[in-house]
Amino acid sequence: MNSLKVELIDKQALRHGDRRTLARAITLVESLLESDRQHAQALIQEVLPATGKSIRIGITGSPGVGKSTFIEAFGLHLLDQGKRVAVLAVDPSSPVRGGSILADKTRMERLGRDERAFIRPSPAGGAVGGVAQRTRESMLLSEAAGFDVVLVETVGVGQSEHRVKEMVDFFLVLLLPGAGDELQGIKKGVVELADALIINKADGDNLVLAENTRMHYESALKLLGRDEFWQAQVQLCSSLQGAGVQEVWNMVLAHHQLGEAEGEIQRRRSMQNIAWMNEILIDLWHQQLRLRASFEADQKLLEAQVVAGKLTPYVAAKRLLGGIQ
Amino acid sequence: MNSLKVELIDKQALRHGDRRTLARAITLVESLLESDRQHAQALIQEVLPATGKSIRIGITGSPGVGKSTFIEAFGLHLLDQGKRVAVLAVDPSSPVRGGSILADKTRMERLGRDERAFIRPSPAGGAVGGVAQRTRESMLLSEAAGFDVVLVETVGVGQSEHRVKEMVDFFLVLLLPGAGDELQGIKKGVVELADALIINKADGDNLVLAENTRMHYESALKLLGRDEFWQAQVQLCSSLQGAGVQEVWNMVLAHHQLGEAEGEIQRRRSMQNIAWMNEILIDLWHQQLRLRASFEADQKLLEAQVVAGKLTPYVAAKRLLGGIQ
Repeated sequence: MNSLKVELIDKQALRHGDRRTLARAITLVESLLESDRQHAQALIQEVLPATGKSIRIGITGSPGVGKSTFIEAFGLHLLDQGKRVAVLAVDPSSPVRGGSILADKTRMERLGRDERAFIRPSPAGGAVGGVAQRTRESMLLSEAAGFDVVLVETVGVGQSEHRVKEMVDFFLVLLLPGAGDELQGIKKGVVELADALIINKADGDNLVLAENTRMHYESALKLLGRDEFWQAQVQLCSSLQGAGVQEVWNMVLAHHQLGEAEGEIQRRRSMQNIAWMNEILIDLWHQQLRLRASFEADQKLLEAQVVAGKLTPYVAAKRLLGGIQ
Repeated sequence: MNSLKVELIDKQALRHGDRRTLARAITLVESLLESDRQHAQALIQEVLPATGKSIRIGITGSPGVGKSTFIEAFGLHLLDQGKRVAVLAVDPSSPVRGGSILADKTRMERLGRDERAFIRPSPAGGAVGGVAQRTRESMLLSEAAGFDVVLVETVGVGQSEHRVKEMVDFFLVLLLPGAGDELQGIKKGVVELADALIINKADGDNLVLAENTRMHYESALKLLGRDEFWQAQVQLCSSLQGAGVQEVWNMVLAHHQLGEAEGEIQRRRSMQNIAWMNEILIDLWHQQLRLRASFEADQKLLEAQVVAGKLTPYVAAKRLLGGIQ
């Protein structure tokens, strides 16, 4: 609950891609103060026509898989292609006053120093839903500031991946060479979200194992079925040597061109936006419900009665909505 | 919108497992009339202490995979084990006045004739959420009527599987011998729900192919990660020859014993019930919202503006909640 000075955001500077202005705008979006939220919403509404033009990419992977190194290599490659790159992070696990992923900017030192790149650590604290919403809004602001590619990073622990999947066009899952979940520490349900699996650190002694892992995952992905227009693919990468990074970008581009041609990207974004609207609707309603002083106590009590098998979920829901009679 | 005669349900007969009484009770639960809903809820609340004692199993698979034949063979095996078996169906695709899965009772003729079995076709029509809720309630009634195993069948087209997964302890996905999604017609996201994959029709000329398919899926499942206490398994079956059916039941039992010992079954059901309560809460609230005459028109209009990029989801949600100003 930082008390922020509401600074007026210079929209001209934002539209021209000024990184400090973008940073300030995102700080406004992340503020939990109601007055800041009003300003933030007005700002987003104003820049809305300038949004939606980036390629939105989600990236996840367990700690130790080399996400930062990959993102730095990938980001630098995009700069070489003449793209401007924003990197945002969603980290549901960060405690309110604790650290956050990407906080350690030195991990992407070269990328962070470049004027054409923008790196933003995840906002600390807040519910998953809240963090996801603020990340979506930060994404829109980054687009308004002219960034061509927005990377949304999250930790592969199975909580926030679905939320990130719902806000991007393409979802990357990073893995290490070596098959089996013990090794990967990956949560069930994450691999299935992938549009592409990246086997990272595929260099040196790891290379043979990485090839093997690729084969295994390729056949596994085929058994899982496919999306409308895209079969998930596997790519070896060595962020250290820079190998495979261009191939990943080509894959994203191929997906994007195919998806645009078939109208799928637009269709998916429309669905994401409507789902987002409904989520906010429910959030706002929950806020209203919580105005009733006893709401949270009632909810706890009724949930306990449902779990104890004393009330049906229907009766409990009805009582909660009406205020326990 | 059938107008049903509200018949008084004989609770004694229900508790004694009378199939006609159970059928009548489920008809009451399926009714869309508000007065029937009140009666149904009172009934469920009354029998609630007698519920929760069955093993709840979800079953899905594409059309043609042999679901009915498998369920008949599996059900008959359970009867041999001294169990009483209820089979319910969730079919989101059935049109309001159209057919439904399981409607063709001749497909499970032997099982249906047995006094210790109860087969109920899916209610035709209604939204997915509504059908799922009625199926949950029918499940509770079946448990109150003393059925030891409740099988919930759904079509493997990717809409209702998640809903069924959320109401059962164990989820079975039926496949045919032969790898690859073209062949299986399976929707992405379904295999990952499985606690066990059944390769059905593993007999005759199919047997070698089936063994091969098993190997492929076994290695794929390992790559997907695992649940807290259970690694999904693959089992060959021939419903025709009755082979593999006992192994599937042993698998369910092993899962149940392990899950009970670790408190996981209870924990999962508690979470399912709380999620169910929240769902109903939102449903009831949506009903209230729809009392506003213009609500659905407002919603359509605002969604269109969001999709067209004219309004942010936040502003649209706020307007929808407040009534467009």
